[in-house]
Amino acid sequence: MNPITRVAVVGGTHGNELTGIYLVKKFEQLPHLIRRSSFESLTLLANPKAYELRRRYVENDLNRCFRQQDLEDPHLRSYEALQAKKIYRDLTTGKTWERGLLIDLHSTTANMGITIILNRQHPFNLHLAAHLAVVYPDLKFYRWDQDDHDSPFLRSIYPFGCAIEVGPIAQGVLNVTLFQQTEALIYTILDYIEAYNRGQLFPTKETLTVYQCVQTIDYPRDETGTLQAMIHPQLQSKDYEPLHPGDPMFLTFEGETIVYAGETVCYPVFINEAAYYEKGIAMSLTQKEELALD
Amino acid sequence: MNPITRVAVVGGTHGNELTGIYLVKKFEQLPHLIRRSSFESLTLLANPKAYELRRRYVENDLNRCFRQQDLEDPHLRSYEALQAKKIYRDLTTGKTWERGLLIDLHSTTANMGITIILNRQHPFNLHLAAHLAVVYPDLKFYRWDQDDHDSPFLRSIYPFGCAIEVGPIAQGVLNVTLFQQTEALIYTILDYIEAYNRGQLFPTKETLTVYQCVQTIDYPRDETGTLQAMIHPQLQSKDYEPLHPGDPMFLTFEGETIVYAGETVCYPVFINEAAYYEKGIAMSLTQKEELALD
Repeated sequence: MNPITRVAVVGGTHGNELTGIYLVKKFEQLPHLIRRSSFESLTLLANPKAYELRRRYVENDLNRCFRQQDLEDPHLRSYEALQAKKIYRDLTTGKTWERGLLIDLHSTTANMGITIILNRQHPFNLHLAAHLAVVYPDLKFYRWDQDDHDSPFLRSIYPFGCAIEVGPIAQGVLNVTLFQQTEALIYTILDYIEAYNRGQLFPTKETLTVYQCVQTIDYPRDETGTLQAMIHPQLQSKDYEPLHPGDPMFLTFEGETIVYAGETVCYPVFINEAAYYEKGIAMSLTQKEELALD
Repeated sequence: MNPITRVAVVGGTHGNELTGIYLVKKFEQLPHLIRRSSFESLTLLANPKAYELRRRYVENDLNRCFRQQDLEDPHLRSYEALQAKKIYRDLTTGKTWERGLLIDLHSTTANMGITIILNRQHPFNLHLAAHLAVVYPDLKFYRWDQDDHDSPFLRSIYPFGCAIEVGPIAQGVLNVTLFQQTEALIYTILDYIEAYNRGQLFPTKETLTVYQCVQTIDYPRDETGTLQAMIHPQLQSKDYEPLHPGDPMFLTFEGETIVYAGETVCYPVFINEAAYYEKGIAMSLTQKEELALD
C-alpha cells in the first residue's frame, strides 16, 4: 500500500463560484482544519484575477486548460493558459505530488445537490467514492466522457481526487448550507485518506452507482445563436431523475413542447447551468451504471 | 382623465438578467402581444453590449445612470453613461412620452417571488399596483428610499410604471415558470392601462401594503473587503418575513452568530443578491406600510 503523500484543496478555478473560494480562504486562515499527520496539505485559489473581476474567467475557461499539449504549447498566452502553466508547475514541485490527491471545488446553478465528479478510474478513487457514498447516501457520482483520457480539467494534475460540484446556487453567491455541507465532505475525505495511509480499511459497498455522461444537448437556437426555447417546466430542476423517450425537454417561447427524442431512458444533469449556455450545453445526458469495486 | 399614451417594455438593463431580455425578444418577434388600441407600445433591450458579454454591465451599472445631472454631464463617457443618454433621448422623442409608462424587467438571486418596485408615488401608479394586488395576491410591492427624488433608475424616465423583479434565479439563466409569470403580469398591466384609457374603473383595494426600504446592511468584512460571514441559515431565503431584534442575521466562517441589532421588527428583502455583494448590500431592511389609496 502506497500512501497518499499530498492533498491540494483548490477553490476559485472559476472566479464566481464563491463556495470553494471562501472555503480556501477559511483553510488559509485556519490551516489546522485540513492538516493531518500522514500527508502534506495545501490550498490554492486558482484564478484570483477572475475572482477579483467577479467572473468565471478572464479570457477563457481555466478548467479546460490542462491538456498536456496545451501546457507545453508556448504559443498559448492567454491569462488562463499562463495561469494553468503556473499552477501545474507549482503543484508538481517536490516529490510528494506523484501520489497527490486534488479536491477541486465547484458550484452549479443546476439542482444537482452534492455531486462528486470522478476523474480517473483508479481503484483508490473508486474506493474513496464508495466510502463517501456510505457516509452520505444522497451524494451523487458523475463522470464526463473525457475524464479518463488526456483531460483538460485542473483536477487531472494529480492522479487521485475529484471535483465537488454543489448546487443549486447562483454564481457570485455564498449559501451557508451548501458551504457547510461541502466543508464536512472535505473533512470526511481527509479523514479517509489519513485512515488509508495508516492501513485502516473501511467497510464499504460492493458497487458504486455512477452517472456516466453519454451526450450533451444544446438549447434549440436560431442561426444567430439566440435561444428558441427554455428548459421545459417538467424537466427544470429534475437533475438525476429518469427522462423517458417522448418526455418534455424544452418549451419554445411560443409555447410548443419539444420532447426527448432518444430511444432509451437517460438521467439528465447540469440542467440549465448558467456557465454552459455559451458552451452549447443545456444539459448532460447520463446513463446510470453500477461499477463493481474490487 | 388623461390617458397613458405610450408603454415601453424594457429588458436587459442588466445584461445577465435573461428573463426580461428574452421577453423583449419575444415581443419583438410577436409585437401584437403587447399592442393595444389606446396607446403606442415599444420595446427596448437596454444594454446590448453587456448582454453580449453575459455580464450585468460593461463599465458601470446602467440602472444607476439616469439622474438628470448625470444625463446632462458631458464628462461622463463610460459605455453605460453614453447608453443612458441615448436611451433617454430615444425614449423621449415625440410627444406621447410625457404620459408614458415604463416597465423595466429585472431578476434577482434573492427569494423575492414576484415584486413590483414602485417608482413614483403618483396616484395612477398606486392604483395600478392595487389592481395587480387584487389579481395576484402573492405579489409584493417594494420601494427604495431614493425612488421619489432625483432617481438614478431607468424606470424614472417616464412618469408612470414600475420595475418587475423576479426570483430566486441565477444570473445568466432562464427559468420557464418565472418567465411565464412575468409575461402574464405584463399583459395584466397592459390590459389595465387599456381599460383605464377607456374610462373603465376596476374595483380595487382601499390600502396597499408596501415594503419601504429604510436601511441597507452590508456583510461583515475585513479591511480588504473580504467577507467575514454569510447570511445566517435561519435568514437565508426568508425575504419579506419579519426579523425581530436579536434574531440571527449572519454566521461567521468560524461558526459565530451575529444577530440583528435593530430595535424594531423589520422585513429584509434582496437577501444575498449576487449583484449587491459589490455594492455593499447583504440585504435591504424594510418597514411594512399600509398606503391609503384615494
